[in-house]
Amino acid sequence: MSEGMSEADLLKWFTSKRSTVEDLLRHRFFYKPSFDIYGGVSGLYDYGPPGCALKREIEDLWRRHFILEEDMLELSGTNLTPEIVLEASGHVAKFSDFMVRDTITDRCYRADKYLIENMDKLLKKAEVTAEQHEEFERVKSKADTYTPQELHSIFQKYNILSEENNPLSYPEPFNLMFATSIGPSGKHRGFLRPETAQGIFVNFKNLYDFNRNRLPFAAAQIGLGFRNEISPRDGLLRVREFTMAEIEHFVNPNAKDHSKFANVAGLQVPLYSQEQQEILGGHLLMTIGEAVDRKIINNQTLGYYMARTYLFLVECGVRKDAIRFRQHMKDEMAHYAADCWDAEILSSYDWVECVGIADRSCYDLTRHAEKSKKNLQAAEKYETPKIVEFIDMKPNKGAIAKVYKQKTQDILTYLAELPEASKAVICKDLEENKEISITINENNYVLNQTMIAPVNSKKTINQEVFYPSVIEPSFGIGRIIYSVLEHSYREREGLQEARHFLCLSPSVAPIKCCVLPLSKNDLFDSSVAQLKENIKRKGLSCEVDSSSSTIGKRYARCDEVGIPFAITVDFQTTSDNTVTLREAKGMTQVRMPLLDVAKIIRKLVDKTVTWENIAGRYPSFSANTN
Amino acid sequence: MSEGMSEADLLKWFTSKRSTVEDLLRHRFFYKPSFDIYGGVSGLYDYGPPGCALKREIEDLWRRHFILEEDMLELSGTNLTPEIVLEASGHVAKFSDFMVRDTITDRCYRADKYLIENMDKLLKKAEVTAEQHEEFERVKSKADTYTPQELHSIFQKYNILSEENNPLSYPEPFNLMFATSIGPSGKHRGFLRPETAQGIFVNFKNLYDFNRNRLPFAAAQIGLGFRNEISPRDGLLRVREFTMAEIEHFVNPNAKDHSKFANVAGLQVPLYSQEQQEILGGHLLMTIGEAVDRKIINNQTLGYYMARTYLFLVECGVRKDAIRFRQHMKDEMAHYAADCWDAEILSSYDWVECVGIADRSCYDLTRHAEKSKKNLQAAEKYETPKIVEFIDMKPNKGAIAKVYKQKTQDILTYLAELPEASKAVICKDLEENKEISITINENNYVLNQTMIAPVNSKKTINQEVFYPSVIEPSFGIGRIIYSVLEHSYREREGLQEARHFLCLSPSVAPIKCCVLPLSKNDLFDSSVAQLKENIKRKGLSCEVDSSSSTIGKRYARCDEVGIPFAITVDFQTTSDNTVTLREAKGMTQVRMPLLDVAKIIRKLVDKTVTWENIAGRYPSFSANTN
Repeated sequence: MSEGMSEADLLKWFTSKRSTVEDLLRHRFFYKPSFDIYGGVSGLYDYGPPGCALKREIEDLWRRHFILEEDMLELSGTNLTPEIVLEASGHVAKFSDFMVRDTITDRCYRADKYLIENMDKLLKKAEVTAEQHEEFERVKSKADTYTPQELHSIFQKYNILSEENNPLSYPEPFNLMFATSIGPSGKHRGFLRPETAQGIFVNFKNLYDFNRNRLPFAAAQIGLGFRNEISPRDGLLRVREFTMAEIEHFVNPNAKDHSKFANVAGLQVPLYSQEQQEILGGHLLMTIGEAVDRKIINNQTLGYYMARTYLFLVECGVRKDAIRFRQHMKDEMAHYAADCWDAEILSSYDWVECVGIADRSCYDLTRHAEKSKKNLQAAEKYETPKIVEFIDMKPNKGAIAKVYKQKTQDILTYLAELPEASKAVICKDLEENKEISITINENNYVLNQTMIAPVNSKKTINQEVFYPSVIEPSFGIGRIIYSVLEHSYREREGLQEARHFLCLSPSVAPIKCCVLPLSKNDLFDSSVAQLKENIKRKGLSCEVDSSSSTIGKRYARCDEVGIPFAITVDFQTTSDNTVTLREAKGMTQVRMPLLDVAKIIRKLVDKTVTWENIAGRYPSFSANTN
Repeated sequence: MSEGMSEADLLKWFTSKRSTVEDLLRHRFFYKPSFDIYGGVSGLYDYGPPGCALKREIEDLWRRHFILEEDMLELSGTNLTPEIVLEASGHVAKFSDFMVRDTITDRCYRADKYLIENMDKLLKKAEVTAEQHEEFERVKSKADTYTPQELHSIFQKYNILSEENNPLSYPEPFNLMFATSIGPSGKHRGFLRPETAQGIFVNFKNLYDFNRNRLPFAAAQIGLGFRNEISPRDGLLRVREFTMAEIEHFVNPNAKDHSKFANVAGLQVPLYSQEQQEILGGHLLMTIGEAVDRKIINNQTLGYYMARTYLFLVECGVRKDAIRFRQHMKDEMAHYAADCWDAEILSSYDWVECVGIADRSCYDLTRHAEKSKKNLQAAEKYETPKIVEFIDMKPNKGAIAKVYKQKTQDILTYLAELPEASKAVICKDLEENKEISITINENNYVLNQTMIAPVNSKKTINQEVFYPSVIEPSFGIGRIIYSVLEHSYREREGLQEARHFLCLSPSVAPIKCCVLPLSKNDLFDSSVAQLKENIKRKGLSCEVDSSSSTIGKRYARCDEVGIPFAITVDFQTTSDNTVTLREAKGMTQVRMPLLDVAKIIRKLVDKTVTWENIAGRYPSFSANTN
């Protein structure tokens, strides 16, 4: 599998290897269906030791790449969420998919996905005309935008039945949140959060205070999300419980430039813009700087996060030629969103959204402010105060008192407390009608131009008060993990037996190294123990494989689970205290003092040296053991 | 607050400072009630930036201390759990607390906790006799063991009413699990897991395979648990959603010695045994080795984990004089448990269970094997095969055929397939009664001593097949975090204004250091930026405080949030590129080259050097700024 493959060839390769890869991942317990002894529950998966370690490494990398690097405020909120929060966010009313039921068996299908599957079946038929082909593709691409009525007509038109060939029901919305009840009374409805974002929004004021009332700032959260998918399929890609990593970057809506934008402006990324989608083209390589200049990407902050996301995905081990940023079409985007791009990754499941990067404007904070009746605005001092002109009202106390006597004070107070906008209206009214009428405590008073006069006035404003806009990069960790695993799958060529392996970057590999005594022999025990101890002291995970298999078989076993380095203790070790260090990717070996090993592996994992550096520094070692 | 305080004085100190500490923690956003803009939800808390970082550090420490050090298999299972799993574990039937309701307002109370609160009120009354004192204390200590009938009589006896002085209902069980429905049909009931343990038990076979069918091994999981507490109080100590870290150590029930026991046998730990509790004594210091020898602790593996738990808690920052291991009383322990100890920590909430360490025997695996009809046993090869004598049965085909003709083959097959134990019973029967009777397909056959004869036989057994026992250390991470925070609270003495601070160990401190320019001056910008960059490159969290407060006020702000090190950039920096490094604990400062700082802090955090080493190596610096 070379770097220069076309998109179609890459997809073909992924597809041809999917079952082999998934077997390997299950067999080596990267993940398995949860509760498999009870038959499993669809859409739920458990990560076993290598999967769990890989997940942790990717989360740690994310934390370093975003939170540490960008000084973000990390938060850890609860999954249990009271109903009112999700009413405010719109999830109670709208977080649903359309579902059709088999009218005989009651089996449920997610309407849009089932429609796509059926279109795919039609597309595979031999007799499809060019015209039909285009029609089926169009239906597929619009599947998630149809109304229930439209879905129903399309299902009728193509006579789509259930998998058991029974009629399907009219599409109905199914809310995807898991509901529960909080507390013993049964009266307080709650849900498992469908995203971590709301936990950040409801904490906006706390975070803003924590940041000493400065903008912009970003808050981040790594945690679980839950979606009661109607018919989960596609392995790790569509599950009911998943890990997300979300960033909410709060910014003045009039100042979406990013202070570090220059650092990424020159980075070329694959953009699949609205325009390219409309003309049915492919994605184009373009620098982030050019895309923002040309207004293809709405603003610098959005562009900055797209660039950082691209770098993160590549660092995780996603193939560069299998990433693209797809812009949401206008009819696909939420009404409040200023712009939205999905980082999609190509795998055997085709292009799949793994990260969403959206400019959500001030929608979420406004909603929560309305619902909670709390002030969720920010304020920014102007560098130089602004002087604003406005029309004020000057009352003539004597003239008012002449007519209204002891009520004068009531009138003066009333006028003084009028908001600015009302004063402007009254002044205009007065000019047009020569007099105005006001009501205080159910008494009417008529005031004429002698009693009040408009005055042009000025005032100084020191700060702007506003709802911050939110730029939200949202990562599906499980989807990234699956993509990395599928992309890291390799087959060795030119060996007697076909051997597959996972070529994972040492920084994310679940197990960093394996210690192998050449054969079963007590002579090796102390060196093995010492190596293991030294490696652990460096905070590195390490396996020992002292089984009786040949050294070649044991190397193969390490390679299969993505262990980048293997150390072999042999008879020479017992005399000169040197060992061999093998890199899985290139299967090359060097000989080095046992005492150097832990330090060197630490550096290789931290990327402060490369394997090439090491291979240049120590003598190479060859034995026919690979 | 010195190291030599008595338990009573320590409790008094914690209690007197609780509101100050909790205010500080809320104010600096270690944690706050979740959804506070909506009035909050009791029992739910969000961790803000420092709390979130502290939590992560403690989890990372746990991972290194247990998973990495002990080669455990880490797992990450789902929170959503189908009903059948929790039926098998007994949670559906029994995971409940007794609840009493205010019969007027419907407000709910957890019966045992409410009883304890009421006993505490009685104990505080002036006129309490010594006899009453003992009685109230006894009721308190047994509160969670009473049946509903007993609770009811006690509530009647002391005339306990609701907080609004209304009568209370008869106690009823309330199941503490959050229920939900998995999938669109509404037919599949599920729960949020009440503990992470079941996710490991249902994976036993997968993990055992992964470990190449060897025992003992331990699996571990860090994740969420959910309990729908009836009336959560006590801040972080009794919440509805919490992080747990659990270990399930699977071991042959006949081989509970631990290979690394010698490493911890000499460690003295505070044990509050059944015996000490019965005689109303205090806890005693004893070595783990002696406690296991004297059978106070049931076995080496249990003792090993108690020792490792003690070391972990101390490493986190829990005071040594505020830890004890309390053994469960016989009537408190589950019927299947061989032994159980809670690591309790003293805080302003008195002694609170933070870790439970139980020998659960083979209960869980047996239950899941029965319910799932899957084989969850382990097998261990004997070092030398065992030869076992048994009584076999030799049928005389001719003699049988004489009587039973064409039925002979049925009889021979039936006899051959009898289990070993049945053969022994039949042979004994035959010897006593000279004949036996068997039933095959509703036909009776009488067989005499001519037809079958007992034979002494031998066979070789290569392996033992058994359900492994499970030793389970289970950690409540939130409770440990709260204890660490309360224990780390200090007040500076001898300063003009009272100043409090958190004395956190650098290895767990949420933010490792703060960079402070002496005053607002562009001259300092490049040094500040360079320091920040270098520190981040070492993977360390770092704040910059360039606000206009005095340097002393800014040090105080760092101290309050537990930042162990502060670096000050001053005018001297601009000429010789040196800075001051200050340690919060002792408020001492040294002067060092700017380029050394990041490396030194990394080492201090990793504990490869001590502050004393650093203070010896660099010139001390004094300025009246603390």
